[in-house]
Amino acid sequence: MLKINGQRLWASLMAMAEIGATARGGSCRLALSDEDRAGRELFAHWCTEAGMSLSVDPIGNLFARRPGSDPDAAPVMMGSHLDTQPEGGRFDGVYGVLAGLEVVRTLNDLGIQTRKPLEVAVWTNEEGARFTPAMFGSAVFTGVMALDAALAVRDADGISVAQALQRTGYAGSRPLGAAVDAYFEAHIEQGPILEDNAKSIGVVSGGQAIRWLDVQVEGLAAHAGTTPMPLRKDALYGAAQMILAVEQLAADFAPQGLTTVGELSIAKSSRNTIPGLLSFTVDLRHHQDRQIAAMEQQVEERLQAIAGQRGLKVSISRHWVSPATPFDAECVAAVQQAVDGLGYAQQSIVSGAGHDAILLARYCPTAMVFIPCVGGLSHNEAEDVLPEDVRQGADVLLNAVLARAGQVE
Amino acid sequence: MLKINGQRLWASLMAMAEIGATARGGSCRLALSDEDRAGRELFAHWCTEAGMSLSVDPIGNLFARRPGSDPDAAPVMMGSHLDTQPEGGRFDGVYGVLAGLEVVRTLNDLGIQTRKPLEVAVWTNEEGARFTPAMFGSAVFTGVMALDAALAVRDADGISVAQALQRTGYAGSRPLGAAVDAYFEAHIEQGPILEDNAKSIGVVSGGQAIRWLDVQVEGLAAHAGTTPMPLRKDALYGAAQMILAVEQLAADFAPQGLTTVGELSIAKSSRNTIPGLLSFTVDLRHHQDRQIAAMEQQVEERLQAIAGQRGLKVSISRHWVSPATPFDAECVAAVQQAVDGLGYAQQSIVSGAGHDAILLARYCPTAMVFIPCVGGLSHNEAEDVLPEDVRQGADVLLNAVLARAGQVE
Repeated sequence: MLKINGQRLWASLMAMAEIGATARGGSCRLALSDEDRAGRELFAHWCTEAGMSLSVDPIGNLFARRPGSDPDAAPVMMGSHLDTQPEGGRFDGVYGVLAGLEVVRTLNDLGIQTRKPLEVAVWTNEEGARFTPAMFGSAVFTGVMALDAALAVRDADGISVAQALQRTGYAGSRPLGAAVDAYFEAHIEQGPILEDNAKSIGVVSGGQAIRWLDVQVEGLAAHAGTTPMPLRKDALYGAAQMILAVEQLAADFAPQGLTTVGELSIAKSSRNTIPGLLSFTVDLRHHQDRQIAAMEQQVEERLQAIAGQRGLKVSISRHWVSPATPFDAECVAAVQQAVDGLGYAQQSIVSGAGHDAILLARYCPTAMVFIPCVGGLSHNEAEDVLPEDVRQGADVLLNAVLARAGQVE
Repeated sequence: MLKINGQRLWASLMAMAEIGATARGGSCRLALSDEDRAGRELFAHWCTEAGMSLSVDPIGNLFARRPGSDPDAAPVMMGSHLDTQPEGGRFDGVYGVLAGLEVVRTLNDLGIQTRKPLEVAVWTNEEGARFTPAMFGSAVFTGVMALDAALAVRDADGISVAQALQRTGYAGSRPLGAAVDAYFEAHIEQGPILEDNAKSIGVVSGGQAIRWLDVQVEGLAAHAGTTPMPLRKDALYGAAQMILAVEQLAADFAPQGLTTVGELSIAKSSRNTIPGLLSFTVDLRHHQDRQIAAMEQQVEERLQAIAGQRGLKVSISRHWVSPATPFDAECVAAVQQAVDGLGYAQQSIVSGAGHDAILLARYCPTAMVFIPCVGGLSHNEAEDVLPEDVRQGADVLLNAVLARAGQVE
């Protein structure tokens, strides 16, 4: 099996991290900011050095292309994103982009030509920190979001995406909707599973289903000092019981079921007022659509039962739903064969976070390669990875892509 | 037993309610506002009509005096407050002031002279809605708070109490600290107990003990989609269990123990982030100091046990403590004898809310008379009472005060 140059890849990661470097060792390159532009320019410079040609589409997605021997073949694409959270880490997104570049550099070093062309994509605004929603670069590319809608989005200062693209010079003219043979994205796991299991590689089988619910609980606000306990309708005591029921739900659907209550807000809250009205969120996750539907049904039944016992009113509404996204069996197999051939410690894993690859999977055959991040930490300046894992992940990417693209003898 | 004039008292209540009347039938007379001044002036006018003399102390407490036959006797005082919440009701405070006036009017009607003088007090800023803390008029009168500290308090517009007193003409010169023979305050219950038990009169035995705690729970913030349940340290799931333990505590100390969690705030909360840090409040109440100390100890033990099971850190600190305030046995007996003599439906009750009388009780023999409010509702424009209860409560006040002040034959 072929191997990439781990020192060169690490040096590129560290050089990119200097653009928008933060005081505590992270990176700040908000989408379409001066720092994001500088990061893209450094990447473009490296790609040109590697003999690649550049193109930009109207939502600012940047593509670097290495030709294949077959002029009619659609490209095998790699990539991820260079934008970061305001206090982001050095590897989230960057790793997938620079691992793609390292694959091309290695093929150059080895004088290997592929039958299909290779492309390395930098997707615009994956993080969603400056512009909402996240991942609109890949969403527009794949037709999930209309170009005009994305261009009209404004940041907190009122600057539109269209203006930011003009300003940074990334309002390109490459046509949207070009054919893609397959898409492979390397990424840090952004969770603790691989580290916990002492694995260097996660063979990602797809993205899990997500359902976001809004729950409102209504009781009766009253004076904390004058209202006997039996006469109360305390929305928070009821909500506490409901939240424990949501926690229990994850145990009942273990290990694939995940439940989180991330936000809770009491209306007109005061230390000596019995909460009369409150709302909280529920985040449900499961690998399978059928199972997450059963989880949502259980939330409804269990919360209504608790409300009934306590004389409270509960209403539950859906905020957002995302179905499970299984990756392409052939692409996943290519990753699996690469890691098996290399003999690295690996496991199958489902992506817990959103990625550009989740959107690409609706558009073309797609797979991902995960490497561990220290302590599962991400979206944090302290985000860290082991150089050995960085190297192994890119080795897997190289061999999977090469198998897909076809080596010209 | 003597009776007051219920129609006259009701008419006075309704006339006072027109000053600062709100759209939905309540009153808005924030402390030392133009409306509060107008309410005081109407009261002062009525007192002058009733032959009483007026005085004002440096914190704006207004006293109307009816002389007794003994020039050396300290006065028997009645009263409460005329200021309201921003969307307050027509009876909270007002009832105690105007019931005191009605007692004097009735004695005038009947040509009864008392041995001890009578005074009706209007305490400044009982509500605490414009100026914090609440009840500083009675607090300064009783020496619980320094005059200078109260005068320096500012409202949200930066206007100090000293300025507001000057502006409304209520910076008086009556010396603080005059002797009071006894203090009787009539008030709406501001809770549902009397109505629930179908009683017209509550003979108030004192104020309950209160302890306010601040609880902070620390877990580990992490991604809702990528973190397996067994690897989580979810501060909110832990807090939900703690909050149910606080609810259970009230059952274990029933019926005198009350517990409320009124505020809960998750730091940097987000729908898809596992809560890593949050805080909530605990309001404990009990009639007895010894029991509330046991409750606080139990909060500490039970919450620490839950935190230990879940790998969370919990820290609990005291925010405020108020000891139980038993009223004067003789004054309470005077109220009890009055209501027994009148034959009204009554019960003993502990005050759940704060009142000027709770502060006066540290200064002079004190008691209170409660009447029900509809649905236990207070601090609300829809606050309501039954005219029959209004009349009966004032009858009780009249006879208790007369017994204390001594009727000159």
